[in-house]
Amino acid sequence: MFSQRIEGLRPSPIRSILEVIDRPGMVSFAGGLPATDMLPEWSGSVPPSVLQYGPSEGEPALRAEVSRRLMDLGVDAPPHRVMILSGSQQGIDLVAKLLVDPGTPTAVDDPTYLAALQVFRFYGARFVDLAASSNEDARLAYVVPTFGNPTGACMSAVDRDRLAERCLREDTVLFEDDPYRDLVYDPCDRTPVAARMAGGQWIYQGSFSKTFAPGLRLGFIAASADLFDKLVMIKQATDLHTSRLSQHIVLDALTAPGWTARIDRLADFYRERRDTFDAALTRHFQNLATWERPKGGLFFWLRLTQRLDTRPLLAAAIERGVAFMPGEEFSPDLPDLGTMRLNFSHARADDADHGLAILADLLG
Amino acid sequence: MFSQRIEGLRPSPIRSILEVIDRPGMVSFAGGLPATDMLPEWSGSVPPSVLQYGPSEGEPALRAEVSRRLMDLGVDAPPHRVMILSGSQQGIDLVAKLLVDPGTPTAVDDPTYLAALQVFRFYGARFVDLAASSNEDARLAYVVPTFGNPTGACMSAVDRDRLAERCLREDTVLFEDDPYRDLVYDPCDRTPVAARMAGGQWIYQGSFSKTFAPGLRLGFIAASADLFDKLVMIKQATDLHTSRLSQHIVLDALTAPGWTARIDRLADFYRERRDTFDAALTRHFQNLATWERPKGGLFFWLRLTQRLDTRPLLAAAIERGVAFMPGEEFSPDLPDLGTMRLNFSHARADDADHGLAILADLLG
Repeated sequence: MFSQRIEGLRPSPIRSILEVIDRPGMVSFAGGLPATDMLPEWSGSVPPSVLQYGPSEGEPALRAEVSRRLMDLGVDAPPHRVMILSGSQQGIDLVAKLLVDPGTPTAVDDPTYLAALQVFRFYGARFVDLAASSNEDARLAYVVPTFGNPTGACMSAVDRDRLAERCLREDTVLFEDDPYRDLVYDPCDRTPVAARMAGGQWIYQGSFSKTFAPGLRLGFIAASADLFDKLVMIKQATDLHTSRLSQHIVLDALTAPGWTARIDRLADFYRERRDTFDAALTRHFQNLATWERPKGGLFFWLRLTQRLDTRPLLAAAIERGVAFMPGEEFSPDLPDLGTMRLNFSHARADDADHGLAILADLLG
Repeated sequence: MFSQRIEGLRPSPIRSILEVIDRPGMVSFAGGLPATDMLPEWSGSVPPSVLQYGPSEGEPALRAEVSRRLMDLGVDAPPHRVMILSGSQQGIDLVAKLLVDPGTPTAVDDPTYLAALQVFRFYGARFVDLAASSNEDARLAYVVPTFGNPTGACMSAVDRDRLAERCLREDTVLFEDDPYRDLVYDPCDRTPVAARMAGGQWIYQGSFSKTFAPGLRLGFIAASADLFDKLVMIKQATDLHTSRLSQHIVLDALTAPGWTARIDRLADFYRERRDTFDAALTRHFQNLATWERPKGGLFFWLRLTQRLDTRPLLAAAIERGVAFMPGEEFSPDLPDLGTMRLNFSHARADDADHGLAILADLLG
């Protein structure tokens, strides 16, 4: 009695983990949560006009501000091709609605963001490995090139060029998901792949969840002209428009003099957490796993020296007060075993050390 | 290159109308907009914890409060089967994702809410007339029984009983959309059809857009046990969760002592607008149309004495500074010609009189 797309629907591992991480004493390396200490406080008043219905595309002033920033990055995103989202998870749903039928070849990295896989799968996507050259052309290529989730890796300029060329050559829609770009701790090339897509079909999205506040659910999407209008129609049918209050608050913050200083402060704070975490990893995981120190974002990606499936370990870890994300969940099909995604932004230093000691003990 | 579901996607007439109604001097009878004068002002402060990620189901305290109100109406909706939505348009999308495949028989009234038709159509629904007995059983029945959009009609208790019985007998999921129930001006039976569905499959949704503020995008959905968990998983994949700030503000308002007085004040305000509008209709449309004075909600539904298609009239009306909603847009298939939906809540009395005079002139 359900639609066919429900058949493959499974509770997300994120969801089951979110249920336990609020338990007192739980150390969570699982989510991609910002440090609550770094969230803004907000107080103010809201004029009644902001509480009326608004346009599906979003508030004009916020669209203009986002456009200005995207144009600065080289993305061809004038204000009339920027739309405000109810968080960037929504962008994935809108794009899948636009492009994915049952069987549609969809190119993704292995591993990649699990909630994107979940949405594409829901609409029936057939996954194609982005790294492998394939006999058939994908309709879309989904990538998180900058401090990607889950690996934290930053794609090189050469690889960005190659990806754009390939999308242009094969008439593949580039779908670039870029929520972590402002959380940068070491220099690296971060020019969007979308900035290399002149004449092609592309969709680029970003988020204010990591730089401002996830609880407001605010993101944005820009796209080439042939795609944008359809995304707006789909957005309208999906939720009419995004909370105008959230838009109002983010616009205030984004245009206040303190924004850049705020991002710098965030990056300093997270850089220190990253380094402390790296040191704790060296203490506890030196013989158990390999990893690279990420140049930005929120995650360490561990490859265990043992090729064991970490999914069954999660329950035992939670039992001992530590949550992590099994890396196997991020694979489109059959995963390489023995990977873990560890978030370093949320836990305090002593908790991180303690939690890593427990994880190491479970693996040892 | 687009998904199949994009083929039938058309710009919504609501969208084209929203673009013009902000023009200075435009009198709009088109949208379902609350009077901006009646929107609340809000000022306050938000603790950082509210700006963190939250649960897909919504804030527990708000779910409990909504549950209490639904249980009072006789709907079997304990807190763990209430979910907060990013507006009730989102509920329609979630339910369609859950139930509608290409070709799925979907029972609807003719006319009914056009943005629901749009979503069901997008997922491939085949419409079945709810009023006609059919040879085949529908998978779901979508209804707005209380001050329905577009007709403003309130379904009688007998018809509510019949609809529930039929859904129970034919294993049809009842999907009751109830955004207008608190805008009541004259007594009538408003007990939800969902309260009559014990043992059956049902989904009930409501909204704070009409009673509080549309700009916050806040609604809620409750469902029978077999459906609820899947709706939560779909919600998570759609936008993770609804703005926690919107939830925080609505919970504050809903639990403050002034809520009931606020609703009473709203009803008094809109009752007066309805009566003034009714008088203006009598002045200008007595020989042009028939209508019933709605007992609640936001709309008058006009049946013109001429059977002319009102869709081509819209451009001429907008040219003369008046927007309305052609009734033909609300039909699932071939419409009866000669209907108009007129919103009476948004325009001030003198504007309404002036706008109706122009519409009458266009028809005369």
